[in-house]
Amino acid sequence: MSRTILVHKYGGTSVGSTERLHAVADRLVRCVADGHRLVVVVSAMGSTTDQLVELAQCMRAPDLPVDFQLASDREYDQLVATGEIVSASLLAMALQSRGCSAVSLTGGQAGIKTEMIYSRAKILGVDLTRIHQELASHSVVIVTGFQGVNDRNDVTTIGRGGSDTSAVVLAAALNVETCDIYTDVDGVYTSDPRSIQGVSKLSTISYDDMLELASLGARVLHPRAVECAKLNGIMLHVRSSFSDEAGTIVKEVDMEVQQPVTGVTVNDDEVLFALRGLPDVPGVAAQVFGALADASISVDMIVQSTQDKGTNTITFTVAQSDTQAAKHISASISESLEGVSVVEHTQIAKVSAVGVGMISRPGVAATVFDALGKAGINIHLISTSEIKISCAIDRSQADTAAQLLHDAFGLDQL
Amino acid sequence: MSRTILVHKYGGTSVGSTERLHAVADRLVRCVADGHRLVVVVSAMGSTTDQLVELAQCMRAPDLPVDFQLASDREYDQLVATGEIVSASLLAMALQSRGCSAVSLTGGQAGIKTEMIYSRAKILGVDLTRIHQELASHSVVIVTGFQGVNDRNDVTTIGRGGSDTSAVVLAAALNVETCDIYTDVDGVYTSDPRSIQGVSKLSTISYDDMLELASLGARVLHPRAVECAKLNGIMLHVRSSFSDEAGTIVKEVDMEVQQPVTGVTVNDDEVLFALRGLPDVPGVAAQVFGALADASISVDMIVQSTQDKGTNTITFTVAQSDTQAAKHISASISESLEGVSVVEHTQIAKVSAVGVGMISRPGVAATVFDALGKAGINIHLISTSEIKISCAIDRSQADTAAQLLHDAFGLDQL
Repeated sequence: MSRTILVHKYGGTSVGSTERLHAVADRLVRCVADGHRLVVVVSAMGSTTDQLVELAQCMRAPDLPVDFQLASDREYDQLVATGEIVSASLLAMALQSRGCSAVSLTGGQAGIKTEMIYSRAKILGVDLTRIHQELASHSVVIVTGFQGVNDRNDVTTIGRGGSDTSAVVLAAALNVETCDIYTDVDGVYTSDPRSIQGVSKLSTISYDDMLELASLGARVLHPRAVECAKLNGIMLHVRSSFSDEAGTIVKEVDMEVQQPVTGVTVNDDEVLFALRGLPDVPGVAAQVFGALADASISVDMIVQSTQDKGTNTITFTVAQSDTQAAKHISASISESLEGVSVVEHTQIAKVSAVGVGMISRPGVAATVFDALGKAGINIHLISTSEIKISCAIDRSQADTAAQLLHDAFGLDQL
Repeated sequence: MSRTILVHKYGGTSVGSTERLHAVADRLVRCVADGHRLVVVVSAMGSTTDQLVELAQCMRAPDLPVDFQLASDREYDQLVATGEIVSASLLAMALQSRGCSAVSLTGGQAGIKTEMIYSRAKILGVDLTRIHQELASHSVVIVTGFQGVNDRNDVTTIGRGGSDTSAVVLAAALNVETCDIYTDVDGVYTSDPRSIQGVSKLSTISYDDMLELASLGARVLHPRAVECAKLNGIMLHVRSSFSDEAGTIVKEVDMEVQQPVTGVTVNDDEVLFALRGLPDVPGVAAQVFGALADASISVDMIVQSTQDKGTNTITFTVAQSDTQAAKHISASISESLEGVSVVEHTQIAKVSAVGVGMISRPGVAATVFDALGKAGINIHLISTSEIKISCAIDRSQADTAAQLLHDAFGLDQL
């Protein structure tokens, strides 16, 4: 009789101490008693990765010779990958101490093959030989998240938050329907419970909504993992590692959606730049965003508007960490083009209403602007997609604005 | 022009902080500037291994089901091996930041193959393919000490202090004459400078003397590494990572030795047991030490003496950590044999005079006993080999006794 395979993923908080690792082990033992075999992906314990990153920062020169960047990235991956090895082997020991057979595998041992590049390698595939071998003789196979090996047998990491992706990739390779993502919250909410009142837990959410929510700052699931789950048709069950309650299922929503808006998010990690007086000729936008891309700066919101006298204003937002670089680039553009001025607005926040349900429903944007307008909240920038409406506003008004939108769409009534 | 290969080993204290790692990097850069290529073996930073061991202790049940012991040992090795990966990758980053090409290799990547067993695996051989490849393109190849992989590609560790052995094995495989052991002391001394006055640094010492000194508590070099160096004819240069001074060379001493005694050591980590009134029949000693061996207790000194009425006394010493187990075994033997009593002496120390030079020189033992006797120091137990004389005495007199012997053999005159 072949037992069902389950894939679980436990985040850094869920394995953040030896007590919590013991709690995870208790849960896994119950699952095994229920007749399951388990593949368990773990993150590094609590702040371990941050500590390793800090150590690395003490060793790397800020002006690292460019020839050595790749070599240094390799060492960085070899270094930070140790965090997950520690939590994985400790969890295996905890299970063995309960009389439950278990083994921990590094990304390499688990057959997770990645691109050659470091720090943000993509997973190319999984050679399941060893995992199947171990599943035949162990109830629980623990795999280090966030890492794999490349063709040189060198350790690679797949980017921060990548353990979610590791879990989804393994679920897909193992033909498992659902991947349980155990975390420190008990599901996906209509907004951030710490700042918004009357939030509701969603019992299900579509991949697309989850993607928007994940990107926009509801730090429950890594967007890349959601994308990967969508692509492979893996359902994700986001749930708390501290309770047995059901969480939120992320899956394809194929019926007509009842609710126009599923969630409201706040991102206060961006700064806004406006380049005013740009000549209204082709190629100017390309020059601006080309320069930003060359500096590896991701731009979030972009708006272009025409001013009088045939000039344009281009407004964009970037992550706070890119402020200095974006400032420098904006300044050099303003110097190279006559009459161009730069306005910088560091105290902004982006408030977004998200929902696949808004596709077929007119008037959602009007509801947003109406709610904010009536409260006297000034909108600096608007950006919309098929399934979201984002407004950049003053950071001091972010929570008020989010609460207004949450109420306006009746999310407290779910 | 092929550059000379040097093999360095840096211990836990030498890489104990980011500052110290930077200091090691500076030293290595100077060696590279002198025209050398380097294979550098590193231990884990400072107390890292202890911290990992502590974590493991929180996860492992004290009464681990016996079927799970091997599996748990595997996890333990996977866990503690991360300590050396951290220091190795950090050191590589520090070198790269100085414009010095470097790469760190785990035991597995470096081709260090071990037995299947865990925690105390023997190194079976080194596949130098990758190391040679890396030496061709990098000035410095850093290898994690203390670890290798077995045939299953599972991480194994070779026992604590094993980084010395890793370095010697690599030196042997690479046909290098000398292996530099960088540590927190600047060489091997005639006795412990913290408690004995007038100690001298030895410029050279024979393998055999070093072996005795290493086993007897001068914690400079792992005995197994000395054995391995002797076997392969590798000279060891024990020296400080905090200075450029020459340290102590450990090598074959093939001329006639001038000095009867090279060093005096104290080991206060032992306890003494005496079984009195044992029947004087064959097989009794085998019964006693068989029971100790079955419990994996290493016995150090052993003396048997005949009492009156045809009974024997067997006296032995074991490590303090084995006190409870040895007590239990002694008690059960005393219960099973009529008239046998157990005497336990926990407050002893073993003071030893060591030197290959005593082989051809009579009167060394007499000097020892005379020095101790004149000072009124009572000897509980004497054990001798060709190159050492050890006396178990009261622990409170250990330093006085060692100083007396150090003076008696003129070691302060070296």
